Amino acid sequence: MYQPFTLVELPRPFLLFLGEECDVAFAKTAQGLRDWAPEACIGEFACAGSGVSIGLPALRPREAKARGARAAVIGVANIGGALRASWLASLLEAMEAGLDIISGMHGRLRNVTPLAAAAEKFGRRLIDLRVPPADIPVATGRKRSGRRLLTVGTDCALGKKYSALTLVREFRKRGVDADFRATGQTGILIAGSGIPIDAVIADFVAGAAELLSPDAAPDHWDVIEGQGSLFHPSYAGVSLGLLHGSQPDVIVLCHETGRDHILGLEGFKTPALANAIQMNLSLARQTNPQVRCAGVALNTSRLGPEQARQTLADCSRELGLPVADPMRDGAELDRLVNACLA
Amino acid sequence: MYQPFTLVELPRPFLLFLGEECDVAFAKTAQGLRDWAPEACIGEFACAGSGVSIGLPALRPREAKARGARAAVIGVANIGGALRASWLASLLEAMEAGLDIISGMHGRLRNVTPLAAAAEKFGRRLIDLRVPPADIPVATGRKRSGRRLLTVGTDCALGKKYSALTLVREFRKRGVDADFRATGQTGILIAGSGIPIDAVIADFVAGAAELLSPDAAPDHWDVIEGQGSLFHPSYAGVSLGLLHGSQPDVIVLCHETGRDHILGLEGFKTPALANAIQMNLSLARQTNPQVRCAGVALNTSRLGPEQARQTLADCSRELGLPVADPMRDGAELDRLVNACLA
Repeated sequence: MYQPFTLVELPRPFLLFLGEECDVAFAKTAQGLRDWAPEACIGEFACAGSGVSIGLPALRPREAKARGARAAVIGVANIGGALRASWLASLLEAMEAGLDIISGMHGRLRNVTPLAAAAEKFGRRLIDLRVPPADIPVATGRKRSGRRLLTVGTDCALGKKYSALTLVREFRKRGVDADFRATGQTGILIAGSGIPIDAVIADFVAGAAELLSPDAAPDHWDVIEGQGSLFHPSYAGVSLGLLHGSQPDVIVLCHETGRDHILGLEGFKTPALANAIQMNLSLARQTNPQVRCAGVALNTSRLGPEQARQTLADCSRELGLPVADPMRDGAELDRLVNACLA
Repeated sequence: MYQPFTLVELPRPFLLFLGEECDVAFAKTAQGLRDWAPEACIGEFACAGSGVSIGLPALRPREAKARGARAAVIGVANIGGALRASWLASLLEAMEAGLDIISGMHGRLRNVTPLAAAAEKFGRRLIDLRVPPADIPVATGRKRSGRRLLTVGTDCALGKKYSALTLVREFRKRGVDADFRATGQTGILIAGSGIPIDAVIADFVAGAAELLSPDAAPDHWDVIEGQGSLFHPSYAGVSLGLLHGSQPDVIVLCHETGRDHILGLEGFKTPALANAIQMNLSLARQTNPQVRCAGVALNTSRLGPEQARQTLADCSRELGLPVADPMRDGAELDRLVNACLA
């Protein structure tokens, strides 16, 4: 009954558009594609005068088209998810150069008159990833077969998707049958299917999470990309609906060293890790009384290797749980993966 | 900037349509209008063969029209919020008799082809209340002036709206400047404005709650209608977004005696009252560290007067908080209201 949209029809490879964002933390889509689908990324481009880069070849749309690019992907997500007027010239340049446009923003490409006109004029496609499937049912709370892991966070944009992708890779290395279940636009671009959970009507969020990870074989793992945080003043409702509908057997808490405050909301502190684990488990028990926390995925990208190792060890001792940086291989990651599968 | 829709344009009085529901708990809209806007209710009607009634005069649409009715209000909300095909004949009968149709369902009247055709043919209006305002912003968490009370619940459909309406009435009796802030279709019909919070895109629920109760005078109270429950496997995300965005100074927990399980989901127990209070306060502190619980609004409609009095007293002693049934006047209600305003 439910047909997730798939990557099959998406025109690849991509030229990644970085807008004019200076804060690289908002270029999640571009970074995610670079790291997890590098074969699909021809290069990057930005608004005139913007110095932002994620380390791909900087190409104007015409050059990218000449090298084989088929679509420009909007690789940044500003607060509120609206298309910026200042992006328009760049997007029109891409369409004129022969590229389709793919967006994961809340605002629909098709509703932007100049883009719709250009699509008509140049015969290009406008592809909105953030359109949830129609007819999502209300969640039933019915227990599903198979096993589930959900990455949860102390904040947005600190590694929930990367952690989930890493865990799937590690599960598969160990011969475990596992699928990555995408809940955001970047994850959907990488995985080829999924549901943009934060674009779902509020009453149906838990129902969407139930759809996303259906009944499966008893030893199959769905590793579900978390969204937001129970402690985020803007998005906590999305996180709770996803937590309830996912019915996780295992949660992994994601955090970034030094992230003391909610990104973009300086007045709000991130929670202590032990509190965050406790709150997530307490609420998750409502739909899966057996839920447990396997450990913490700590983003230590701002630290050097030695300092990172020390931080992971300290944090692990403090919590009495495995703590690993999914972006750094090693014994810590092995321990976290083993704890997930235990 | 924000223009809530108002009752001014709604065609009154109403004929209340009860569908074919046998479970009176789902006739929330009809009951709410009967109790809180009786002057607007001419009568009730149902599908042929249905014995359901909420105690208003049973009138066919033609009779109701003759007595002055201007619109039929769909007074029941089935799970999922879709229009039932079996309602169609009754709604067409109402339109042919000269009535507009008002709906608070998720499914849009205008998308039901036979209704749209009949509206065209008979010159009737189809009014969908559950369409949130456009351009709701993401919540900022910014502290707003004025005071706020939110009714929260152990489950759906047990008295959060009635409790809020009663508290506003009692606040005003004491000379306190107070407004009822509606978050559901029935509340919106009664109040004349509001936001259908569960129809908002998930990312914007807390933002909608911020819009709903804007900055106000320091001694003004917004009494906000709660939705769902943090413990409801289907709707908890809506409840949490509303809790965060409302930034309540005071919460009142609503429960019904004997409601041991979540309505319609027998496998799920309702929480202990003390746990429900603790969980709501714990999450609410994220946007208002000063939040407190003033007491419990206990729906004792299934009990006789003496048994109700005893139950309220027992519950109050157990929790160490005022416990009152908002539908029963008396010392208990006074104590609860005083605790809210303390």
